[in-house]
Amino acid sequence: MTLTFIHGGTVVSATGSQLLDVLVDGETIAAVLQPGTTTLGADLAATADVVLDATGKYVIPGGVDGHTHMQMPFGGTEASDTFETGTRAAAWGGTTTIVDFVVQTPGERLQDTLGAWHRKADGKCAVDYGFHQIIGEVNDESLKGMSELVSEGVTSFKLFMAYPGVFYSTDGQILRAMQAAGDLGALLMMHAENGIAIDVLVEQAIARGDTAPYFHGTSRPWQMEEEATHRAIMLAQLTGAPLYVVHVSAKQALEQIATARGNGQNVFGETCPQYLYLSLEEQLGAPGFEGAKWVCSTPLRARAEGHQDELWRYLRTGDVTTVSTDHCPFCMKDQKEMGVGDFSKIPNGIGGVEHRMDLMFQGVKSGRISLERWVEVCCTTPARMFGMYPRKGVISPGADADIVVYDPNGHTSIGLGKTHHMNMDYSAYEGFEIDGHVDTVLSRGRVIVDAGEYRGSAGHGRFVKRALSQNLI
Amino acid sequence: MTLTFIHGGTVVSATGSQLLDVLVDGETIAAVLQPGTTTLGADLAATADVVLDATGKYVIPGGVDGHTHMQMPFGGTEASDTFETGTRAAAWGGTTTIVDFVVQTPGERLQDTLGAWHRKADGKCAVDYGFHQIIGEVNDESLKGMSELVSEGVTSFKLFMAYPGVFYSTDGQILRAMQAAGDLGALLMMHAENGIAIDVLVEQAIARGDTAPYFHGTSRPWQMEEEATHRAIMLAQLTGAPLYVVHVSAKQALEQIATARGNGQNVFGETCPQYLYLSLEEQLGAPGFEGAKWVCSTPLRARAEGHQDELWRYLRTGDVTTVSTDHCPFCMKDQKEMGVGDFSKIPNGIGGVEHRMDLMFQGVKSGRISLERWVEVCCTTPARMFGMYPRKGVISPGADADIVVYDPNGHTSIGLGKTHHMNMDYSAYEGFEIDGHVDTVLSRGRVIVDAGEYRGSAGHGRFVKRALSQNLI
Amino acid sequence: MTLTFIHGGTVVSATGSQLLDVLVDGETIAAVLQPGTTTLGADLAATADVVLDATGKYVIPGGVDGHTHMQMPFGGTEASDTFETGTRAAAWGGTTTIVDFVVQTPGERLQDTLGAWHRKADGKCAVDYGFHQIIGEVNDESLKGMSELVSEGVTSFKLFMAYPGVFYSTDGQILRAMQAAGDLGALLMMHAENGIAIDVLVEQAIARGDTAPYFHGTSRPWQMEEEATHRAIMLAQLTGAPLYVVHVSAKQALEQIATARGNGQNVFGETCPQYLYLSLEEQLGAPGFEGAKWVCSTPLRARAEGHQDELWRYLRTGDVTTVSTDHCPFCMKDQKEMGVGDFSKIPNGIGGVEHRMDLMFQGVKSGRISLERWVEVCCTTPARMFGMYPRKGVISPGADADIVVYDPNGHTSIGLGKTHHMNMDYSAYEGFEIDGHVDTVLSRGRVIVDAGEYRGSAGHGRFVKRALSQNLI
Amino acid sequence: MTLTFIHGGTVVSATGSQLLDVLVDGETIAAVLQPGTTTLGADLAATADVVLDATGKYVIPGGVDGHTHMQMPFGGTEASDTFETGTRAAAWGGTTTIVDFVVQTPGERLQDTLGAWHRKADGKCAVDYGFHQIIGEVNDESLKGMSELVSEGVTSFKLFMAYPGVFYSTDGQILRAMQAAGDLGALLMMHAENGIAIDVLVEQAIARGDTAPYFHGTSRPWQMEEEATHRAIMLAQLTGAPLYVVHVSAKQALEQIATARGNGQNVFGETCPQYLYLSLEEQLGAPGFEGAKWVCSTPLRARAEGHQDELWRYLRTGDVTTVSTDHCPFCMKDQKEMGVGDFSKIPNGIGGVEHRMDLMFQGVKSGRISLERWVEVCCTTPARMFGMYPRKGVISPGADADIVVYDPNGHTSIGLGKTHHMNMDYSAYEGFEIDGHVDTVLSRGRVIVDAGEYRGSAGHGRFVKRALSQNLI
Repeated sequence: MTLTFIHGGTVVSATGSQLLDVLVDGETIAAVLQPGTTTLGADLAATADVVLDATGKYVIPGGVDGHTHMQMPFGGTEASDTFETGTRAAAWGGTTTIVDFVVQTPGERLQDTLGAWHRKADGKCAVDYGFHQIIGEVNDESLKGMSELVSEGVTSFKLFMAYPGVFYSTDGQILRAMQAAGDLGALLMMHAENGIAIDVLVEQAIARGDTAPYFHGTSRPWQMEEEATHRAIMLAQLTGAPLYVVHVSAKQALEQIATARGNGQNVFGETCPQYLYLSLEEQLGAPGFEGAKWVCSTPLRARAEGHQDELWRYLRTGDVTTVSTDHCPFCMKDQKEMGVGDFSKIPNGIGGVEHRMDLMFQGVKSGRISLERWVEVCCTTPARMFGMYPRKGVISPGADADIVVYDPNGHTSIGLGKTHHMNMDYSAYEGFEIDGHVDTVLSRGRVIVDAGEYRGSAGHGRFVKRALSQNLI
Repeated sequence: MTLTFIHGGTVVSATGSQLLDVLVDGETIAAVLQPGTTTLGADLAATADVVLDATGKYVIPGGVDGHTHMQMPFGGTEASDTFETGTRAAAWGGTTTIVDFVVQTPGERLQDTLGAWHRKADGKCAVDYGFHQIIGEVNDESLKGMSELVSEGVTSFKLFMAYPGVFYSTDGQILRAMQAAGDLGALLMMHAENGIAIDVLVEQAIARGDTAPYFHGTSRPWQMEEEATHRAIMLAQLTGAPLYVVHVSAKQALEQIATARGNGQNVFGETCPQYLYLSLEEQLGAPGFEGAKWVCSTPLRARAEGHQDELWRYLRTGDVTTVSTDHCPFCMKDQKEMGVGDFSKIPNGIGGVEHRMDLMFQGVKSGRISLERWVEVCCTTPARMFGMYPRKGVISPGADADIVVYDPNGHTSIGLGKTHHMNMDYSAYEGFEIDGHVDTVLSRGRVIVDAGEYRGSAGHGRFVKRALSQNLI
Repeated sequence: MTLTFIHGGTVVSATGSQLLDVLVDGETIAAVLQPGTTTLGADLAATADVVLDATGKYVIPGGVDGHTHMQMPFGGTEASDTFETGTRAAAWGGTTTIVDFVVQTPGERLQDTLGAWHRKADGKCAVDYGFHQIIGEVNDESLKGMSELVSEGVTSFKLFMAYPGVFYSTDGQILRAMQAAGDLGALLMMHAENGIAIDVLVEQAIARGDTAPYFHGTSRPWQMEEEATHRAIMLAQLTGAPLYVVHVSAKQALEQIATARGNGQNVFGETCPQYLYLSLEEQLGAPGFEGAKWVCSTPLRARAEGHQDELWRYLRTGDVTTVSTDHCPFCMKDQKEMGVGDFSKIPNGIGGVEHRMDLMFQGVKSGRISLERWVEVCCTTPARMFGMYPRKGVISPGADADIVVYDPNGHTSIGLGKTHHMNMDYSAYEGFEIDGHVDTVLSRGRVIVDAGEYRGSAGHGRFVKRALSQNLI
Repeated sequence: MTLTFIHGGTVVSATGSQLLDVLVDGETIAAVLQPGTTTLGADLAATADVVLDATGKYVIPGGVDGHTHMQMPFGGTEASDTFETGTRAAAWGGTTTIVDFVVQTPGERLQDTLGAWHRKADGKCAVDYGFHQIIGEVNDESLKGMSELVSEGVTSFKLFMAYPGVFYSTDGQILRAMQAAGDLGALLMMHAENGIAIDVLVEQAIARGDTAPYFHGTSRPWQMEEEATHRAIMLAQLTGAPLYVVHVSAKQALEQIATARGNGQNVFGETCPQYLYLSLEEQLGAPGFEGAKWVCSTPLRARAEGHQDELWRYLRTGDVTTVSTDHCPFCMKDQKEMGVGDFSKIPNGIGGVEHRMDLMFQGVKSGRISLERWVEVCCTTPARMFGMYPRKGVISPGADADIVVYDPNGHTSIGLGKTHHMNMDYSAYEGFEIDGHVDTVLSRGRVIVDAGEYRGSAGHGRFVKRALSQNLI
């Protein structure tokens, strides 16, 4: 087996940083060593097959993106990244594990949909991947299916309070699914927006002639997210289900989450880089149809209302538990364009799986969060949250050798034009400059990105059978 | 140098647990290894000088007790543990670092008092130790002394809102010290009780003939702690000083801390095992003068008011940041007895440096906190909080080899009579049964407790020059 | 016209009490006078047609009960009090105005249902009455109907988040109705319970064999009320509609209301005597089928959870704005009995229109609320809230002469057997002893109850055309 | 005795408005009548001695200003209004009762200082007046004196957490005074600012050369007010004393008060027009020494921090209970000028007793508060709060005939130069335009202001012996 030795770097964990050497034996971290340790009777730099000099750089666990939608069918089209293109982009960005969503639509068996998704991903992925299960129809059979899925390593289930007629579950269905999740100890994930009321607002907006992308945002006001978040929390409180609220963008929704957490309830909040950096006014409100690039739900919020600063604060205080991307890319051409003249027909989604580690590192550079919190919210906690720790999310012997060498003195331009590797004809972050750079990426011991070159291969990535969430209070 | 190999155990960190081997080279952890790692070309179990089999046991960082008072002068007497007896007892209990308090009294130079304390501790300690500085008199000179102390590794400063005429600082003095701490980035520690108002209540109680130990508790009601805590938070908010509130016992005080933390302020709450387990009714209210054993400030709170459950909850949610002992032992004979007929003359303090790791592990056994939180609040966070990480508080290469092998299937009786090693003629926890046991303790690579035998020596423990707090939000 | 002179009593208003004489000319209060005022050139005690000596007694505005359901069709039966029997019982209890609910069921025009209710009440009532409108189906036509109703003096509209398939409105419908109410300035009243989730719990309870009345309570847990209350508040926040939450029984729901009120939102909370005095354990949990007497929704709450004390507190602090009865009586025989063996078939409702003024006065006697607050929450604020002030709810010239002479030294036994005047075969408050007594009741100048005798007549009571709510912040 | 008849106006109370006639017999309101009431056998408009036509105008209770300092010794000078000039100005502005502060300085008996203040006011006042007592030294004797004062109609006691060395009380003294107030049921009034810490900030500002009036504000930051407010609340909570926090200017302090009130504690917040209209940036920050005009404590707050909007909101929600002026005028010449070059030497105080009713009516005009709330916070609640209701604060028979006819269509310019009647060489509100006008003022039945003419006389105003506060929850 290949012996890889990474030396000279600063290993960053959720609790601190140290100059440490890392020895990788095959796919696994074999040892973490004090630099210059000779007592082991081996000159590792000399004997290792691969030697990486990480001097002056950070050595961090590979990123774990807990929320992606590769080739996701939505709104009459499909997310533009396949498992192959999307995981390759992830690798470029220092993310070595994604957890994607299996979609059940009414009438299907959960187990069958999981099988279908396995077939989509198998043999295609550049990095490891797990699955969450979307339950499109809560009924006796799907409830029974949940326990089977848990035993197959799919231990989290997502419901929608939005999208009536598509993914929407009633409160009664949510209650039943939460009871089941509570019994299993499985994580209940929630898209928390009041879709029933929002549909009225959308219909009214269109009727008024407010059809531009901007009105996608104004027809999903923060009250709709705050309300649904609170409702999900109360139903979880009643049933004992651990609750994970995805893609929180409104500060008021986070306040609800923070309150529940303060009361000792197992409630977790996820946010995404788009909510930390982009806004209703600047992006959704771009001239013409340009704003369609940033149509996603929950929507970008008004900068004037101060959501961004509050989200960063909650990230600092720990009430935002994880940062994922909700990667769900659509091209402008043929896809986003479906909604010209009617924002409600624009496929919802923003691609970002490649940029998360960089964008969040910029938060370190700008003093928003500490270096340790960066690793915590992007790597360690997602791994714990989704039952993959210590295999993922930590630089520790026994763990999969998913490792990123990150250069804090490097630079990354998310320039205009095609400077990224996602299958999109634009980037949501065009023009962003990052004061850091993903130098080298290892996935299970194999160097898949190095020196600006992609050295991975489709099919290297394997399915990760996940345990129950390890992050409960 | 001695090579020590600890194998077969489960290493517990603040974020998770893994089966890992640990190699210690001299005083330092040299490597952490996947069990059975042979690629390093050495059969460590065969070649190491000392081999410890930790199979079935937890391997944790040595405990860090951030709050002790060895041979502390107080109330006309002195705490009954010397640095020698107290640190030996700490070792027995799996605590390998203490941070004790240097006392400045008015008229003294901070630097001189630090020197005096160095002389008390030097050559006496069984385990490593650091110092906080109590500022008894805030004035131009002591404010200037603060920066000098920081450069000597004393990076935290304690003030008292209690004890007028002894340690008490006015709000103006607190403000000035906080400004200085804020400028230095040094931690400001606070004993938060409204001593001025309490003194009136004490005087009134004595005048009414309420002289038994129980009235120590009732004359320091929770409002006095909540109020002072809030005041300290506001002064810290104004000055930018990071604030660490010691020995919080009232749930209402913790609510103030949690609120400030939620707002993103660098405020930290410490509690102690006595507040998690003991109460006003049962202990302070024991018949006759017996309650004197548990006279300490802040006082034990009424079980009927629900403080204990709330403290455990705040411990779970992270708003209690650390658990220390406030170890300040006094014997009943000659010491506590000074207050027969007048509770206000009872020396304030409870000894517990030996029992903290056990008592908190019992919280794991009873489902109050997770295994990871146990290590976090007793080892990792105190080390980070007081600027000693990663030298202390973590099992990681490069760290001091302060390691405890803890047996979760062992048993510890804190029996009646002399079953502990503190220099006290009673134990505050007599009758407690712990479902776990400290088996082996290493301090900087040396086995100092093993198989029920003390193998350490006075003077092994060294002063730890601390950096600034690393736990700031 | 009849001249009535009430002298010697203490007139109680929402802000204070004074010894004052009251002169009634026909149906209206003509003057309020300082006792012994002779400067008006008339010896009123001598010249008045009717002279009432109120010495030692309270003279208060007639009670305004803002929430009754006379002969309400519900659950396959009809509330057992007609407008005739129910308003007569109200008169006996010192309530001189009720506001009852017109019910629209899907397919009906609001205006038609209002007509039907006018026909039910016209010529039957002992005291004055107004109407709220229940909107059973929110659609374009009913939304348009709202403004017409406002012009006819029906200025408040009630929706249900409970009772799917009966009165239930979706969040989208609620949103639309609130937009309309906000535009009109009309009050939106809400039955706030998550009926969709509750129906699942009810079905599960029945399936488990938990069929006794007690399980009516446990299948509508406080989380379901708190949640719906919060949801209604958020929808109101978005639309600008003033919101009145009816029959709040859970302290957590009131906390939501108090928070919204603190933020300056026009949100009002109503509670009822049953929630202040009765409980899940004692009443709903009575042996056998007895508990059916107290089946109502929201349900009686667990005494052990402390709701009652909190409700009294919120009454004291003003966050409970009004106390109504939700009078909806059903006899045990033939009616409540429909649910033997299946609590979900028990008609929901408790009768109490006769006892409200007494029960709340007992709160004055027991020190729970002040005398002024009694008048405020039972008379003045309901009149303001529902747009009838100063015609109702105050002792002031120009107001309708709805006056109660209340004896604080009298006594009222709500004894076993038939000691009340409601058309029910039991009383929900049997065994209650009240330290006060309704002595004399005037409705628009006419003495209708006096000296234990009923002297009113069906048809004396007239419809009150109401203005918009006057209680907005 | 003179018979006065006020007809045609709209009488406004705290709960509503009505067209009503008012008959005054001598000093007292004899009757309130429905317009056109003839059944009393008298044509009042014809027979009354004085007839006032209030058609199209508001008839309101005379204003009650609960916080004035006439000829108050402070900072080496004395407030520039005597009881004669100050109460005359009050009359001009529609205020017919003031409650002024007796000052005890250490060494004096409370009773003696009360006597001295009686001598200052007796025979001088244009309108009625009461006294609060400032306790400058809490000790056994002054505590005993409190009960004597209560029996003499001085039922509220003020302490200072500010001004060390002048009025300052320690927390121990506050505790004792609160215990006494709690026992007596007397109101404890508090100037809540942390004077000890502020003195340090002031000293530092002066040392830095920040000597302009602006720095008066910045050296008393909101944290100092919030903190002291919370401290006072906690001490009151412990002792059971009802607490009235004077001149609240920081929104954070009001949040503390609102929280305590929500918990059911008897805590009341007063604010003043200066905090609702004026700001740190605009007034205190005026060029040169101009800002001295607005030096008062608590200070004007930064408009940028949003205090004003929040104060208006709290006024609307009822958490600001009363609006007083804290009238404490100093002339620029010779008085304010004492602080040229050192803001800490500027006498603290703003005069405004004449403008309160107008300034608050402007809040009605601008939609900030309702007409009823205007009367409530300026007249009715102060009267209740300070134990003068229903003698003061209400238009009701038996009440003192303190009545204001206010013209909502009139206009009042607080112009540049001498357009007011206070003994000040400037006005704090110069340039303010009020859309309303005080037309006629009656004090105990006597017209003292009418048609722009002062018709009162020194000595007409009498001392009001006050009962205990009637506004307790």
